[in-house]
Amino acid sequence: MIIVMKQGATQAQVTNVTARIEQWGCQAHISEGEERTIIGIIGNGRPLDRAPIERLSGVERTVPILRPFKLASRDFHPKDTVIDLNGVSIGGDQIVVMAGPCAVESREQLLETARVVKAAGAKVLRGGAYKPRTSPYSFQGLGEEGLKLLAEAREETGLLVITEVMEPDLVPLVSSYADILQIGARSMQNYALLHAVGEAQKPVMLKRGMMSTMEELLMSAEYILSHGNNRVMLCERGIRTFEPYTRNTLDVSALPMLKHLSHLPVIADPSHGTGKWELVEPVARAAVAAGADGILVEVHPHPEEALSDGAQSLKPGRFTTLMNHLGPIAEAVGRRL
Amino acid sequence: MIIVMKQGATQAQVTNVTARIEQWGCQAHISEGEERTIIGIIGNGRPLDRAPIERLSGVERTVPILRPFKLASRDFHPKDTVIDLNGVSIGGDQIVVMAGPCAVESREQLLETARVVKAAGAKVLRGGAYKPRTSPYSFQGLGEEGLKLLAEAREETGLLVITEVMEPDLVPLVSSYADILQIGARSMQNYALLHAVGEAQKPVMLKRGMMSTMEELLMSAEYILSHGNNRVMLCERGIRTFEPYTRNTLDVSALPMLKHLSHLPVIADPSHGTGKWELVEPVARAAVAAGADGILVEVHPHPEEALSDGAQSLKPGRFTTLMNHLGPIAEAVGRRL
Amino acid sequence: MIIVMKQGATQAQVTNVTARIEQWGCQAHISEGEERTIIGIIGNGRPLDRAPIERLSGVERTVPILRPFKLASRDFHPKDTVIDLNGVSIGGDQIVVMAGPCAVESREQLLETARVVKAAGAKVLRGGAYKPRTSPYSFQGLGEEGLKLLAEAREETGLLVITEVMEPDLVPLVSSYADILQIGARSMQNYALLHAVGEAQKPVMLKRGMMSTMEELLMSAEYILSHGNNRVMLCERGIRTFEPYTRNTLDVSALPMLKHLSHLPVIADPSHGTGKWELVEPVARAAVAAGADGILVEVHPHPEEALSDGAQSLKPGRFTTLMNHLGPIAEAVGRRL
Amino acid sequence: MIIVMKQGATQAQVTNVTARIEQWGCQAHISEGEERTIIGIIGNGRPLDRAPIERLSGVERTVPILRPFKLASRDFHPKDTVIDLNGVSIGGDQIVVMAGPCAVESREQLLETARVVKAAGAKVLRGGAYKPRTSPYSFQGLGEEGLKLLAEAREETGLLVITEVMEPDLVPLVSSYADILQIGARSMQNYALLHAVGEAQKPVMLKRGMMSTMEELLMSAEYILSHGNNRVMLCERGIRTFEPYTRNTLDVSALPMLKHLSHLPVIADPSHGTGKWELVEPVARAAVAAGADGILVEVHPHPEEALSDGAQSLKPGRFTTLMNHLGPIAEAVGRRL
Repeated sequence: MIIVMKQGATQAQVTNVTARIEQWGCQAHISEGEERTIIGIIGNGRPLDRAPIERLSGVERTVPILRPFKLASRDFHPKDTVIDLNGVSIGGDQIVVMAGPCAVESREQLLETARVVKAAGAKVLRGGAYKPRTSPYSFQGLGEEGLKLLAEAREETGLLVITEVMEPDLVPLVSSYADILQIGARSMQNYALLHAVGEAQKPVMLKRGMMSTMEELLMSAEYILSHGNNRVMLCERGIRTFEPYTRNTLDVSALPMLKHLSHLPVIADPSHGTGKWELVEPVARAAVAAGADGILVEVHPHPEEALSDGAQSLKPGRFTTLMNHLGPIAEAVGRRL
Repeated sequence: MIIVMKQGATQAQVTNVTARIEQWGCQAHISEGEERTIIGIIGNGRPLDRAPIERLSGVERTVPILRPFKLASRDFHPKDTVIDLNGVSIGGDQIVVMAGPCAVESREQLLETARVVKAAGAKVLRGGAYKPRTSPYSFQGLGEEGLKLLAEAREETGLLVITEVMEPDLVPLVSSYADILQIGARSMQNYALLHAVGEAQKPVMLKRGMMSTMEELLMSAEYILSHGNNRVMLCERGIRTFEPYTRNTLDVSALPMLKHLSHLPVIADPSHGTGKWELVEPVARAAVAAGADGILVEVHPHPEEALSDGAQSLKPGRFTTLMNHLGPIAEAVGRRL
Repeated sequence: MIIVMKQGATQAQVTNVTARIEQWGCQAHISEGEERTIIGIIGNGRPLDRAPIERLSGVERTVPILRPFKLASRDFHPKDTVIDLNGVSIGGDQIVVMAGPCAVESREQLLETARVVKAAGAKVLRGGAYKPRTSPYSFQGLGEEGLKLLAEAREETGLLVITEVMEPDLVPLVSSYADILQIGARSMQNYALLHAVGEAQKPVMLKRGMMSTMEELLMSAEYILSHGNNRVMLCERGIRTFEPYTRNTLDVSALPMLKHLSHLPVIADPSHGTGKWELVEPVARAAVAAGADGILVEVHPHPEEALSDGAQSLKPGRFTTLMNHLGPIAEAVGRRL
Repeated sequence: MIIVMKQGATQAQVTNVTARIEQWGCQAHISEGEERTIIGIIGNGRPLDRAPIERLSGVERTVPILRPFKLASRDFHPKDTVIDLNGVSIGGDQIVVMAGPCAVESREQLLETARVVKAAGAKVLRGGAYKPRTSPYSFQGLGEEGLKLLAEAREETGLLVITEVMEPDLVPLVSSYADILQIGARSMQNYALLHAVGEAQKPVMLKRGMMSTMEELLMSAEYILSHGNNRVMLCERGIRTFEPYTRNTLDVSALPMLKHLSHLPVIADPSHGTGKWELVEPVARAAVAAGADGILVEVHPHPEEALSDGAQSLKPGRFTTLMNHLGPIAEAVGRRL
């Protein structure tokens, strides 16, 4: 960390700061510039909190130098993490497509969708059994009944199953049905939940909060990794901006940036990222072209009857077209679908 | 809800939409403009999901007309909610000041702070026993030990106690020590937690998420209210913007806007809202001038040694000065401290 | 436009609003719902200002129905605009690459870059002679000397020239050298400048402001179009968000959305859009995959010596690699480089 | 400036960076930490561009230490700037109220408003003769006719006149009528205009762009100051955020922060800052409580007939009430109206 002293900071103030730094077992390194004195802290391996330093007399501000994530960082783990799961490799050459309805609504809806996405080449079936909804009056999901239907669809199609878990107490139950646990955007900083999935024996897909920086996403991944689960993948699903024409703004540059900062696989969600079915295909193509390791797409056989997020769901025919169009993009970046 | 049809939508498409609306037990009201046909939905009292409608053929978009919150809305509850608690009224004439350290760190630190804030006129003691921290390596709070210290400080000073609860399972324990349950910004959409505090017998202070709209805040309040707890207060604690010179941007216009939309008391948190102790006093004054029913301020006897958020904590002397300066502002808006 | 009356609005208030609407030569269409009365305005062809209506007694808010842009809208011009310029078609099958240094710095720098980008397949040479700089102390460009160097580079290589114009008074001068006039992001709402280029005889590339919505971008295009210049192309160059790891957030979904809303060609600028040269290639690939009609890329022979924006400039070798990688992506979406 | 080298940067890379720094006439100061080598640059008094340094081999990123503004900075000018103008002091003890219509529409409208705001205690009359409008089809102002009406109103009432100038060529004309030149939010980075008003003999009020940082605002002030005009005041008028219930989000903490960073007077605009007349009074009170040196308020005798921004204009009676309520707030912070 770098400490920038105020203009005109006294020698006594500088001495007090360096004394404090040494108390913490760190070394202080002073540079006197024309306008400001700068003090570099050479650490003792443990992270330092900036706030207490910023309250020392004569200090203007602090500047962190090291990224605060370690286990998630490519610096200490240069090789890509590849998650192998029943013959599907996430983070390898293949672009993994996860598709299915926003919410599991019925046996018929789910099985029909599962067959369609399987036939078109998806490897993972998505579907929410527990739904986070802004309104207490909206459909909240089928719960365990939904999980059973997902398991049945897996049985029939051979697809892997990903589904969201929203509460620490439900991690064992959801883990008993799902192949991949999804942490939703609103739960990205639900630390009790991160702790719980960190101790689960299942891979986790962690969605970026709509208001979260890449650094915060990686810090939340760090929570899971530090509790012993190293099968974590990140998901960019659109951030909140001032633009009203789309539901969210998919941050396409986050895909290569996260791959650069971290060894974890990175998935893109063009359905939530745009909120409009017309934009799902072009943005899915963009995500693959930018280096995503997989995409998560909402597909519903009858989106105009969907109980949630029908506006961003593809009909089966459009999904098949999307898959046909994604293949050549994957090849153009040296990968395959 | 209003449905805007695409330019050139056919008569058959319009008929299909109105048929669907009538299936749902609602009435359709068609206006044909020069460029667009508009269909108004006259409801059946139940909220409608926009997404499925937006997928109907010929529909361009939908426009919600009614605010989605009911129990939190002033429309249906014109009178201010006043929460009475051991002689302190929140939402009445008095501006209620809640003050204390960000985190409970030790008996000495907490009691020293409690005495100071009590002497200066605060009515409620704040202090975190469970701390949501971005990093898994940061201090996470003293847990139940912290709750016991808070109870001891109440015993000694007569201050009420507010503290954060982060997990549904901990609601009973935290309720057994605290007078007011705080839901933090990161938990604003933790629905299991909202459900749990909705069933608790304690007042709840719900903080606005750092990138949540006022409508989402009111919808989260609606969750708590709809589970039977009507002693809810809202807290504006700064939103995330592009501005790097402050930690967050306190949305001062949200204070009168929330009072306009809702009957619930509204509290402001200038400490988190700015992240800099130098800004706490002017922004606290602004909040009171704008109509806040209370303020939440971090005070620490030795902020340069604080284990969290020292940069935004006031020293005891500065807090006393703040209280002295707030009194005349409160009077200028016809209230009292 | 739709007018939403307040809950409990009186019959007299509704009558007053409808009388006002009829005064303006429009028709009013009343729908009485359970909670709110809604009044639709059927227009007289001229746009209406919302603000005066929102001040009428009993009005809660207004909701615009029609998009405010006409000349830029695909509704009234369904076919794509293709701009033909000396054998280069912008908005057609070919993805047009515009490349060159951020600023023209010297004859040697510019000619060296022009030869490289020509050899790699670019069709247009970019380079700033007048530079908008946040600081008055930064390099502001070579001015007319830079324009002359651009013309010389065109002479030698046959590339078209695009360069920024920042002041209305300079439009004639810049037009006498450039093939395409660029309006920078900071000038997107400089209406005197939009007026001036609207009367120029050169195509215009209009960059989206870093803080501007798609609707505002299209309204600024409308200014140019309404002054008689119909050769306008739009450019997405990244918007400002809360994310600090990238300089801007390139809004990739704006590319298909703008193509959907408007008939004008859409260009992407992955150099400004990311601010980091490592991200330029993946984001350029993404832009082409999402449907951009062209890309604008900064190339500098010695970026570590550049006088502006070296951090986002590609070296010649990397630009050649980018072009090699873009070809297959263009083909995968049915186009060519 | 601080240079952070990549993990594993070689000795040769560090040597190359320091050699470059010395070439520029600066000194390099190396700190070798456990994970990263940091190089401090001790400057030669001239600002350095970060981008070229970030392209040097082995460099991860740079961190600026000094604020880039000098003339606007309180570091080099600790005393408050007070602008004296015909007996009105801006930046002194008195809170200066500037009020009037958004746009000058007619002689009657302007004179009626001028009399009202004068009677209520305003010192400056605001009114736009040239209006920046998002749509080319909206009312663009009366132009010089509007300026003449403003001068007539000054003649009659003795109020000072502030009005916006949008084009460099119009600075002499507008200066010949106005007492204070206003640079609007959309023009904050119109450098030709900043240059022109920097050479004018009139005080300038510079509005913060709706998505500009405080640093960018101060850099734009620096442009004006560096061209010789030192009578500059800053204006916070709301920034753009994700919140749709208000038109902008007035950044109340920017008021004390700008006063802390700079010696220039700071004005708040609660009318544009909120976009809703109901919020103007509480937010104006907040601005004064937070330390604003003045406020800018829209007043219109018949806001429901206003040609622009009627929704945020106060009626005369409400403005008088506002003035009555502001007085006690001003006194509570040791100032007067």
